[in-house]
Amino acid sequence: MNAIDIPVIENVLKLNDEIAAINRAAFDEAGVRVVNLIGGPGCGKTTLLEATAQQLAGRLCLGVIVGDLATTRDAERLLAAGAEAVQINTGKGCHLDANQVRQATQRLDLTKLDLLIIENVGNLICPVGFDLGHHAVAGVFGVAEGDDKAAKHPHLVHRADVLLLNQIDLRPHVKFDLDRFVADVAALNAETDLFHTNAAAGQIGPWLDWLATQVAWSRTRPRARVERPE
Amino acid sequence: MNAIDIPVIENVLKLNDEIAAINRAAFDEAGVRVVNLIGGPGCGKTTLLEATAQQLAGRLCLGVIVGDLATTRDAERLLAAGAEAVQINTGKGCHLDANQVRQATQRLDLTKLDLLIIENVGNLICPVGFDLGHHAVAGVFGVAEGDDKAAKHPHLVHRADVLLLNQIDLRPHVKFDLDRFVADVAALNAETDLFHTNAAAGQIGPWLDWLATQVAWSRTRPRARVERPE
Repeated sequence: MNAIDIPVIENVLKLNDEIAAINRAAFDEAGVRVVNLIGGPGCGKTTLLEATAQQLAGRLCLGVIVGDLATTRDAERLLAAGAEAVQINTGKGCHLDANQVRQATQRLDLTKLDLLIIENVGNLICPVGFDLGHHAVAGVFGVAEGDDKAAKHPHLVHRADVLLLNQIDLRPHVKFDLDRFVADVAALNAETDLFHTNAAAGQIGPWLDWLATQVAWSRTRPRARVERPE
Repeated sequence: MNAIDIPVIENVLKLNDEIAAINRAAFDEAGVRVVNLIGGPGCGKTTLLEATAQQLAGRLCLGVIVGDLATTRDAERLLAAGAEAVQINTGKGCHLDANQVRQATQRLDLTKLDLLIIENVGNLICPVGFDLGHHAVAGVFGVAEGDDKAAKHPHLVHRADVLLLNQIDLRPHVKFDLDRFVADVAALNAETDLFHTNAAAGQIGPWLDWLATQVAWSRTRPRARVERPE
């Protein structure tokens, strides 16, 4: 199958990268910093973004594009929390691609936003390989998932500019060797920050600080010299 | 892209189905019942299978094929729990396919097994579309993932012969509307059984009973009349 298969896959990725570059140029033009948020189903991505929208209210204008196979539940939650939110339903699609993001951004006024977070489909694997035009990747793991998930998902850890260990409040209730998890992350990516969060209780301070540095980066960077960051 | 893309994808699936049929014939010939276990990363699949191996010891001979992107941690855990275990590392692959299972089964003596459980890659999406030659699909959700995961993953719920809601012990510690979850499952698949389990504490009785009915089905079915169950 490979002789037929591989060129097609390469074409799909090449087309995706071309659209991602168009997205990134549009984001840079509008002065909006864009983060691709990747994590497994139920690690707390939407809860994190609800708390983020609530705590950034009045300070930054946050947009969210959220991908799920089905339902509009996440976008409804994020609109209620004060974000500008657009839902993408992927059907059977296991990740977002650049063209879906391009279509979704046409339903947002990018010039009003300081920050756009793309909540990818709940999946630790497939989203990692697709450039959406984002500037940074944030990876989320949940304590209830167990301490082995960084080691089992090296590609996400390699690519992440920041990692969150969410559901930190559940540590007393599940088996989770924090030293082992931290050592696994460090062995895979010694550069990335790793923050502990309890999104359900709104304890997300280090994440908000990291987002603020992202937005500041966007504001201070001379537009004329913008280059593709990846 | 579709004119090029779609035929290739169809060929890949057709080839997979052909190998799945070979697998299923081999399983039927050996008299082993095969279950494809699908759930998100960290819902407790391996913990469930550890408890299953321990509690079936001396009653049934259990084999496990376990898929992960990286590490052999799960197979090590399952060998220690008493199962015949083979690890498949998929690299960047987001699901198991029939050919990987075929290669793994060649490292097992199928005639010695009563039951083979294939622990798919931790992913609620991609594994659903690939026939491995299994006889039944078991889907696992974890309480810590939130009550919306059945509604968000309708394809798995449609295909599942049994569903487990694991981490039931975490209900006091997370927001989870059990009535809503149960209603979502019932709306998608009124036929499937839904069992509550706490795999970490070994509370998996209804799952073991269901497995026993699967094995009994395999033993009582006349070999000469075996047909493809799906």
